[in-house]
Amino acid sequence: MDVLAAKSMIESSTSCDFDEYIKTYSGIATFFRAKHTRDLAETDIALVGLPMDAGLTQRTGARHGPREVRSQSCNVLYFNPLTNISPLSLCRVRDIGDVPIPSAFDLRRMIDEIFAFYQRLDAANVVPITVGGDHSITFPILKALGVKTPVGLVHIDAHFDTAETISGSTLHHGSPFWNGVQAGVLDPKRTVHIGLRDPYTEFERPFADETGMTVIDINRFHDMGLANVIKRTREVIGEGPAYISFDIDGLDPAFAPGAGTPAVGGLTSYEAKRLLQGLRGLDFIGGDLVEVSPPFDSAGITALAGAQMLFEILCLNAEAWAKRAKAGA
Amino acid sequence: MDVLAAKSMIESSTSCDFDEYIKTYSGIATFFRAKHTRDLAETDIALVGLPMDAGLTQRTGARHGPREVRSQSCNVLYFNPLTNISPLSLCRVRDIGDVPIPSAFDLRRMIDEIFAFYQRLDAANVVPITVGGDHSITFPILKALGVKTPVGLVHIDAHFDTAETISGSTLHHGSPFWNGVQAGVLDPKRTVHIGLRDPYTEFERPFADETGMTVIDINRFHDMGLANVIKRTREVIGEGPAYISFDIDGLDPAFAPGAGTPAVGGLTSYEAKRLLQGLRGLDFIGGDLVEVSPPFDSAGITALAGAQMLFEILCLNAEAWAKRAKAGA
Amino acid sequence: MDVLAAKSMIESSTSCDFDEYIKTYSGIATFFRAKHTRDLAETDIALVGLPMDAGLTQRTGARHGPREVRSQSCNVLYFNPLTNISPLSLCRVRDIGDVPIPSAFDLRRMIDEIFAFYQRLDAANVVPITVGGDHSITFPILKALGVKTPVGLVHIDAHFDTAETISGSTLHHGSPFWNGVQAGVLDPKRTVHIGLRDPYTEFERPFADETGMTVIDINRFHDMGLANVIKRTREVIGEGPAYISFDIDGLDPAFAPGAGTPAVGGLTSYEAKRLLQGLRGLDFIGGDLVEVSPPFDSAGITALAGAQMLFEILCLNAEAWAKRAKAGA
Amino acid sequence: MDVLAAKSMIESSTSCDFDEYIKTYSGIATFFRAKHTRDLAETDIALVGLPMDAGLTQRTGARHGPREVRSQSCNVLYFNPLTNISPLSLCRVRDIGDVPIPSAFDLRRMIDEIFAFYQRLDAANVVPITVGGDHSITFPILKALGVKTPVGLVHIDAHFDTAETISGSTLHHGSPFWNGVQAGVLDPKRTVHIGLRDPYTEFERPFADETGMTVIDINRFHDMGLANVIKRTREVIGEGPAYISFDIDGLDPAFAPGAGTPAVGGLTSYEAKRLLQGLRGLDFIGGDLVEVSPPFDSAGITALAGAQMLFEILCLNAEAWAKRAKAGA
Amino acid sequence: MDVLAAKSMIESSTSCDFDEYIKTYSGIATFFRAKHTRDLAETDIALVGLPMDAGLTQRTGARHGPREVRSQSCNVLYFNPLTNISPLSLCRVRDIGDVPIPSAFDLRRMIDEIFAFYQRLDAANVVPITVGGDHSITFPILKALGVKTPVGLVHIDAHFDTAETISGSTLHHGSPFWNGVQAGVLDPKRTVHIGLRDPYTEFERPFADETGMTVIDINRFHDMGLANVIKRTREVIGEGPAYISFDIDGLDPAFAPGAGTPAVGGLTSYEAKRLLQGLRGLDFIGGDLVEVSPPFDSAGITALAGAQMLFEILCLNAEAWAKRAKAGA
Amino acid sequence: MDVLAAKSMIESSTSCDFDEYIKTYSGIATFFRAKHTRDLAETDIALVGLPMDAGLTQRTGARHGPREVRSQSCNVLYFNPLTNISPLSLCRVRDIGDVPIPSAFDLRRMIDEIFAFYQRLDAANVVPITVGGDHSITFPILKALGVKTPVGLVHIDAHFDTAETISGSTLHHGSPFWNGVQAGVLDPKRTVHIGLRDPYTEFERPFADETGMTVIDINRFHDMGLANVIKRTREVIGEGPAYISFDIDGLDPAFAPGAGTPAVGGLTSYEAKRLLQGLRGLDFIGGDLVEVSPPFDSAGITALAGAQMLFEILCLNAEAWAKRAKAGA
Repeated sequence: MDVLAAKSMIESSTSCDFDEYIKTYSGIATFFRAKHTRDLAETDIALVGLPMDAGLTQRTGARHGPREVRSQSCNVLYFNPLTNISPLSLCRVRDIGDVPIPSAFDLRRMIDEIFAFYQRLDAANVVPITVGGDHSITFPILKALGVKTPVGLVHIDAHFDTAETISGSTLHHGSPFWNGVQAGVLDPKRTVHIGLRDPYTEFERPFADETGMTVIDINRFHDMGLANVIKRTREVIGEGPAYISFDIDGLDPAFAPGAGTPAVGGLTSYEAKRLLQGLRGLDFIGGDLVEVSPPFDSAGITALAGAQMLFEILCLNAEAWAKRAKAGA
Repeated sequence: MDVLAAKSMIESSTSCDFDEYIKTYSGIATFFRAKHTRDLAETDIALVGLPMDAGLTQRTGARHGPREVRSQSCNVLYFNPLTNISPLSLCRVRDIGDVPIPSAFDLRRMIDEIFAFYQRLDAANVVPITVGGDHSITFPILKALGVKTPVGLVHIDAHFDTAETISGSTLHHGSPFWNGVQAGVLDPKRTVHIGLRDPYTEFERPFADETGMTVIDINRFHDMGLANVIKRTREVIGEGPAYISFDIDGLDPAFAPGAGTPAVGGLTSYEAKRLLQGLRGLDFIGGDLVEVSPPFDSAGITALAGAQMLFEILCLNAEAWAKRAKAGA
Repeated sequence: MDVLAAKSMIESSTSCDFDEYIKTYSGIATFFRAKHTRDLAETDIALVGLPMDAGLTQRTGARHGPREVRSQSCNVLYFNPLTNISPLSLCRVRDIGDVPIPSAFDLRRMIDEIFAFYQRLDAANVVPITVGGDHSITFPILKALGVKTPVGLVHIDAHFDTAETISGSTLHHGSPFWNGVQAGVLDPKRTVHIGLRDPYTEFERPFADETGMTVIDINRFHDMGLANVIKRTREVIGEGPAYISFDIDGLDPAFAPGAGTPAVGGLTSYEAKRLLQGLRGLDFIGGDLVEVSPPFDSAGITALAGAQMLFEILCLNAEAWAKRAKAGA
Repeated sequence: MDVLAAKSMIESSTSCDFDEYIKTYSGIATFFRAKHTRDLAETDIALVGLPMDAGLTQRTGARHGPREVRSQSCNVLYFNPLTNISPLSLCRVRDIGDVPIPSAFDLRRMIDEIFAFYQRLDAANVVPITVGGDHSITFPILKALGVKTPVGLVHIDAHFDTAETISGSTLHHGSPFWNGVQAGVLDPKRTVHIGLRDPYTEFERPFADETGMTVIDINRFHDMGLANVIKRTREVIGEGPAYISFDIDGLDPAFAPGAGTPAVGGLTSYEAKRLLQGLRGLDFIGGDLVEVSPPFDSAGITALAGAQMLFEILCLNAEAWAKRAKAGA
Repeated sequence: MDVLAAKSMIESSTSCDFDEYIKTYSGIATFFRAKHTRDLAETDIALVGLPMDAGLTQRTGARHGPREVRSQSCNVLYFNPLTNISPLSLCRVRDIGDVPIPSAFDLRRMIDEIFAFYQRLDAANVVPITVGGDHSITFPILKALGVKTPVGLVHIDAHFDTAETISGSTLHHGSPFWNGVQAGVLDPKRTVHIGLRDPYTEFERPFADETGMTVIDINRFHDMGLANVIKRTREVIGEGPAYISFDIDGLDPAFAPGAGTPAVGGLTSYEAKRLLQGLRGLDFIGGDLVEVSPPFDSAGITALAGAQMLFEILCLNAEAWAKRAKAGA
Repeated sequence: MDVLAAKSMIESSTSCDFDEYIKTYSGIATFFRAKHTRDLAETDIALVGLPMDAGLTQRTGARHGPREVRSQSCNVLYFNPLTNISPLSLCRVRDIGDVPIPSAFDLRRMIDEIFAFYQRLDAANVVPITVGGDHSITFPILKALGVKTPVGLVHIDAHFDTAETISGSTLHHGSPFWNGVQAGVLDPKRTVHIGLRDPYTEFERPFADETGMTVIDINRFHDMGLANVIKRTREVIGEGPAYISFDIDGLDPAFAPGAGTPAVGGLTSYEAKRLLQGLRGLDFIGGDLVEVSPPFDSAGITALAGAQMLFEILCLNAEAWAKRAKAGA
């Protein structure tokens, strides 16, 4: 596709005219300055905020994540200069606002309300790309997406998030993938964890091992090298539908100080971007970026890193959507 | 007007449902969560951002002001608990986005482009309430509003902003009111400066004095007392159309660290709010809040103070609008 | 009591020797470097942390409050140079650590667990002075303290906190005093709200008025003057047992940027301290400092202001304890 | 003196041309953009940095004070718009750089080296205005200035700084005035402390009282009112030579978060400026601004407040110098 | 050259005595504590500030860059411990202050004024090393330096900066190298871009490719490896005169949060330093460090990184100067 | 050892019950939530704070290090997920509070007082792991530990710290290892410096070379590769008793902005952790983490990185202790 045509398509699908995308500080902030709508019928991929952090166990603030990621995302270009993907030109990408959650003080009810919303998106054939919010939100999303076929998972994080009970509850930001497996919506054999170095409990690694998940902790990541990590991840995910969940604490605190559970010794943002760029062609049907905590951020670099990772996730999903669309045509 | 009816009117005119106005951190940020539109026909009062800071002479960053004031304004209630005004219920208040400015590197051209935009608003009978941007923006706004009748001015600031030439130009953030008088759109006899303590040049006070402006510098403010300042201001402004321009550096840097030209020894935010509340009944036809510089802010307190001052300005203008509407009916 | 004797008593009751109280940055941080114990039998007044923020509706972070207030409290002197009170010499003041709360993700259960803990303190005749945490914690504390006699209340805050339901729950940080009245543990006739300027909902002021609470909003505070505010407060509270609840957002954001629900135009820290110093002699049986949110703080000034207010609250309670002890002897 | 003549004089005495004083962010930073020289023969008033903080007992960082105050002082105008003083036109004001101190790790030796430097300034008839550094520096300065006649003192601070021994030493930032009295260089009868609220030890107030110092703590400050505080201060200081020492923690932490020993409930910057403006005509022979700690500052507001207070101190000293010069002519 | 001799030369050429270079926080800040002069006759290499940011399109603040880089540069040693170069001993390195720019509000005029200044430096045979300011300043510098022979260029940046028109102007911080080629002062065949990952427009890479520039984007940088990048760069630059331009956003935001246009996934500061150290022997005739934006910095780490990169650039230029001097002798 | 048994042991030896180690923000902060005691008889490894920064030559603040490292250490797990070491279960690890230092203003006396304290620890057979404070503290510690046998040293730092005299003193944060060699308590042949890039003086490298120390500067570190660095370090240290000293500025400022003497181009936190993990089996008899300067930190990431490095140091020492205990049994 040629560049001018792409830009023309982008302009018609975004909220901004040419000048505004140069003046990144201008205009009401939507994700990547995409057009805002609540109309699912005109939406192929929905960028959606989920400002909820009732599931956190350590530092707070993820509820403020979507607004700041929106703000910083306006600084991200509409095309990917290293892979040449223009996601906004591949399908109808929209910012549909934030997930409405009537409750606020009881995590279990909130998780149910989130699940109901993603069921609606799924029913409308909309691919959801979510900005959290804490990591507890990924379970109700997977529950909506994996109801027919358990999904594969690329999980970048400092933590396994396969814990069971903490403070008397199995719902929290350390358990989405334990819940996903219990609910039968996540396929552990097609799950890869990358960047781990700081699990919550001593039970998470055994659970991952016993259920057949692939674990590439940070030491193994460096021992294998990036190319082999990509290769192995592609092998594990294979052909089926896959989801990608990026916890910002997968990055080292130097790159993402504004994280809910920062853990020293993590990925650089280059490593993370290159890793994501290596996953083109997998059949992604959604993704999320979670745990950006603006109150702990510095000069917006965490939200900016989050926005950039989100953009790579959007690129992967847009290509996958286009491939499926073409196959379906 | 009873409260429930007001709330019902508000709900239909805002972008949010009941739950969202409680969750102030949720949703795409518009000013006071007002409905976004670009349709002037459905707008009585336009809240508009003007992210332009090419006129600054000291610290930078005012271009980032509108986005952060939008964000913090979501924390401001839809009604004023101290005056009981619900501006969103008095008229159709809309966030019309940011002023489009094609140029970027030549202040003179930008000032012209701004003027053209406000002419359009004026032609559509829309009352503009603007969030800058640096103070140079007030001149083209006045030029549009005062073309038929020179306006009166309530000006809260650490500086006179009646300077002439700096760095070879008469257009800059220290000269909007010199320009306004030169252009015949500002009535110096109906102009009050409040809070002054740090003029740019030694020529500004003489200009103000010679043209008959009323000057209440910070020492005189305290010597007179708040009640007398309000009384004197009301006398000077009188019956005619008036504009209100609030430079955030009118507040002390403790209350507004994120200012473009901070000056020690200023107003407290209580004094400023009470002052504004004392100006009810004047015939305001527009206003602005300028010079919020987020890069120098701390925990958003400057943007929040700006949002709160903006809300008082909105209340004043909404009441004035309603009064004119009633008189016109 | 002479100074050297007082110091000697203090030394035996605190965790520090003479040198350490000069080196305020040295040692494991307890509140005011008081001795740490979990033994209630050696405790007259318990300083206790309550790191819980599940009841917040706006900005997060109050869970991090107790640790930072402990840290900054080490910079506060062991005597009050303006009132000459040495609270640590009046009774056995201890830091008993933080309230244990088994739950984490369901506010209702957490409130119950908090209530149970304060029942234990009350049964042991220990006066609790609590550092929150969000304001929802005050209801279970009052429920424990007011079970025999409804307590009077001095409430310093930007908000009424007499709201009923938000996001489907009556338990949250905007409702402790609505709950207190409903439960019959708070006497609205002996309740004074000071500094109000930003209620959550339009129903809070009517509730306060109808139940007979005294409301001194920030405008009235300035119109009355500090001396009259103190006088009126003393009259309303009268002779009976009283509780004091200080929400750090009662201070202006300039003085307390790290607040959960900052509201512009508030009290200065001088006004707040002087107000508290004016309440000596009232029969306080407990108090709290809530809503310090360190992630939004700047250079620790909010936590320091909180620690200083806490110290005044401690002084008031220590004098009241000593007076009761003397009367009982 | 007319304004243009004054400006012309200023230009010849400063390091900057007209344009540079408008562009406050341009050029190598000296205090108030005054000319830099090490030649005492061309200097009437020396602005000098003293980056030394070995005498601190609480928070560190005052060694970084002079550089940041220089930087922020470039934002202060060359004339005082509220008193119409142009200090740079009254005498030869120079930035002579920083006090050279060969030692670094033994406070006693450093104090001796500082003393030797100020003896040289005094021998050259240069009036020193110093930016610290911690408050321990004031003793060696007084020792040099008061050797013939004990000086009077205006002292604005949260603390008495009349303590004796801390951590085994009588030299530290809490003892300059105890040392000054012991050395016979400070006249306690002509000493006024303003703004006190947080002494280090319980012995400081008795020492002040017993030696006949005037104490206006923060409560008394408000009870008397600003006008009476000024009147009383003028009476106490009287005709003789006087020194002015401004500890930035005299301001409330809201106005000066970057202080070494912040104490809640202090002066506003307006109150402090107005107080200083009220002391015109006293025979000042030097002054200092101490304890600005940039690592704890926020957006430079503390250094800016310090620079503004320094400017008022410069105005007072320049007028006193000119008066003496005229009397001597 | 032996070390003591070198130090002796340095001392005579810098503003500081031995003690002061240990106390890095002492003294008026010049670049690397070099001697300040405006006398070009005593200057071989001029360190010069250019506080101008009218060409920015995204985040502001570069006008504040020179002052902060000066401040942080005082923390950099006078010798390079990894290459053993002592640039201050190789030639007369001076801090000549900031470029005087009479205009302020019209980028085109400012660019002309900058050009005129560098013509003067060039006429005086002074090698300029500039601290910006935004990247638009590099064009007028190249225009002065490349007038006789088009220069080669080592360009480290996240962006190509070969864009043409943005917001109606060809002058801005994204176009210096497009302008350089158009003006015939930059040799595209001897130009290498390193670290690219975030161009402004889709036209920049084609321009670079078509004119024969060498492009090593961040992915290619890692694929080639540092040693090969250095080798390739040396080949492209070859024997002729070369300029080096370092945009601080070439570093990842973790290393340089205070950048005007931060882009995630960049160079580490180790990689950048090692790269620069690998370019010894090339015939550099000037260089710049641009886009340091202190308002977005954290604890000065961006300014410090900038100062360190500047020092490597100074080392390269000093060696080149000495080589030419020797050849010319 | 099986996991549950380990946890059971940990619980009995720490200050926290199960719930509290999940709620990392709860409770009075001790290092890694270890039990606090002053009883050396129940202590095998003592975690101890040393809040002293009188030996700094550049940026200040290390006195505030222990308190912040304690706070952040509560976020570190009680087991090492990458090496499977649970140090708290290997021996009795206690937080014994801070080193008492009666002096405050004379470094020489303070160093003597520190030495006396570590003699007491050594006499009690307690392994000390210290959190500074500035690096001058390491000499008196080595003096106590190496009195019988000179110790080997693993030293991670940006600087050699083998300088002699600065500002007239041989005691300062740049000389601990010069002093250690002079005192015969440090074995230079068994000393390895890693990460160097920014020595204070030109005499430090010659001293290191001449005494036979092994120097792996940052360039050599990358040229050798991590595996070879580990191998070489193990060879140099060999079988004898060894000490490990980690200056936080060994990390790049991106990872540790809050350092006393930050130097660009340093280690990543991954590299540092992996390096430490590679030293298992060496006979460590103590260690320290120094120069964390909270006033310059950002969101606590430096203190967190420090806590994580401290945990690896604790793991190494606990394993060495257990090995010696087993050998001794």
